[in-house]
Amino acid sequence: MCEPIQRLIQRLGRLPGIGEKTATRLALHILRAPETVARELASAIVDVREKIGFCSTCFNLTEKDPCAICLDARRDSWLLCVVAQPADVMALEKAGLFRGRYHVLHGVLSPLDGIGPDDLRIPELLRRLGEGSRFAEVILATSPNVEGEATAMYLAKLIKPLGVEKVTRIASGIPIGGELEYVDQITLARALEARREV
Amino acid sequence: MCEPIQRLIQRLGRLPGIGEKTATRLALHILRAPETVARELASAIVDVREKIGFCSTCFNLTEKDPCAICLDARRDSWLLCVVAQPADVMALEKAGLFRGRYHVLHGVLSPLDGIGPDDLRIPELLRRLGEGSRFAEVILATSPNVEGEATAMYLAKLIKPLGVEKVTRIASGIPIGGELEYVDQITLARALEARREV
Repeated sequence: MCEPIQRLIQRLGRLPGIGEKTATRLALHILRAPETVARELASAIVDVREKIGFCSTCFNLTEKDPCAICLDARRDSWLLCVVAQPADVMALEKAGLFRGRYHVLHGVLSPLDGIGPDDLRIPELLRRLGEGSRFAEVILATSPNVEGEATAMYLAKLIKPLGVEKVTRIASGIPIGGELEYVDQITLARALEARREV
Repeated sequence: MCEPIQRLIQRLGRLPGIGEKTATRLALHILRAPETVARELASAIVDVREKIGFCSTCFNLTEKDPCAICLDARRDSWLLCVVAQPADVMALEKAGLFRGRYHVLHGVLSPLDGIGPDDLRIPELLRRLGEGSRFAEVILATSPNVEGEATAMYLAKLIKPLGVEKVTRIASGIPIGGELEYVDQITLARALEARREV
């Protein structure tokens, strides 16, 4: 098979979750589809790298600094949600309930991988919550897995002394639509423990 | 979420088998990965459209016309394998057993979708097999589904009168590594019917 196709398959195959078969299927689609498909995809890839950077306040992805969420005066400026990744902001915004501000850590603590507090946007978070801060509540919304929990506990210990009124953690439990019988034991135990009166 | 990211997600989401979640994951990877990943992927997409065309003999994808397979003097020039798509050539070449020539139809007959013989490379195939042809065997290697079978039967009827010695059909049966108990009834019936002495 000729070189340009081989190369496209190889490049597509480097994307996460794209194996050789999928890469081949995508490459042949790009060859067969109207030329605009290929051109627009290529320019969208180049554009995203050229135009997108980090917000210097919350470290979310943005075209302009500060980002639209940080600038939006209608959002609660007393409520801060700390997440690991920009993808988490996207998920929460899609859910549409949260109307406060964000802080993106760009990872979680992971001593085994050599990722400590200074490799994340933790110093910036602490500065943001320091003197003159208007934040009354900080929601720690890292994922409920080992590293996400450890990161949340670590942050809680640092944030409380800064005078923030409430430091909270997103709830864990059985996913909506999930079946009790298929939920893992730890989630089930946590869901029982965190039961609420109705 | 800002426009360049939205647009990339939307463009990726138009590729076959890529839903919105996968598109989002890929877009964020492209943002996070080293810049060369994005640049090389974009240029591979543009390149493939600019450099790849069809071989005017076999209609496979190629950078140069005629293609490397058509030009390769070491390949059998009496043996022709007819396939539906360039992807089928890639699969057969990977299997590595076939050493003849190809003819790519670019589809199969599908009256319901309005795809008739003149929408495929069937006229070109018949011309290739006409006067002065050196092909002694034509293997009809369309997929063993309704449309692939119908296309193969249609071609067999047209090719035999042209004086080709043998017109053959690739074998159907239980896939190697497959389990008899999970194979569908039609495949099983076909495998029994086509049993061979050992």
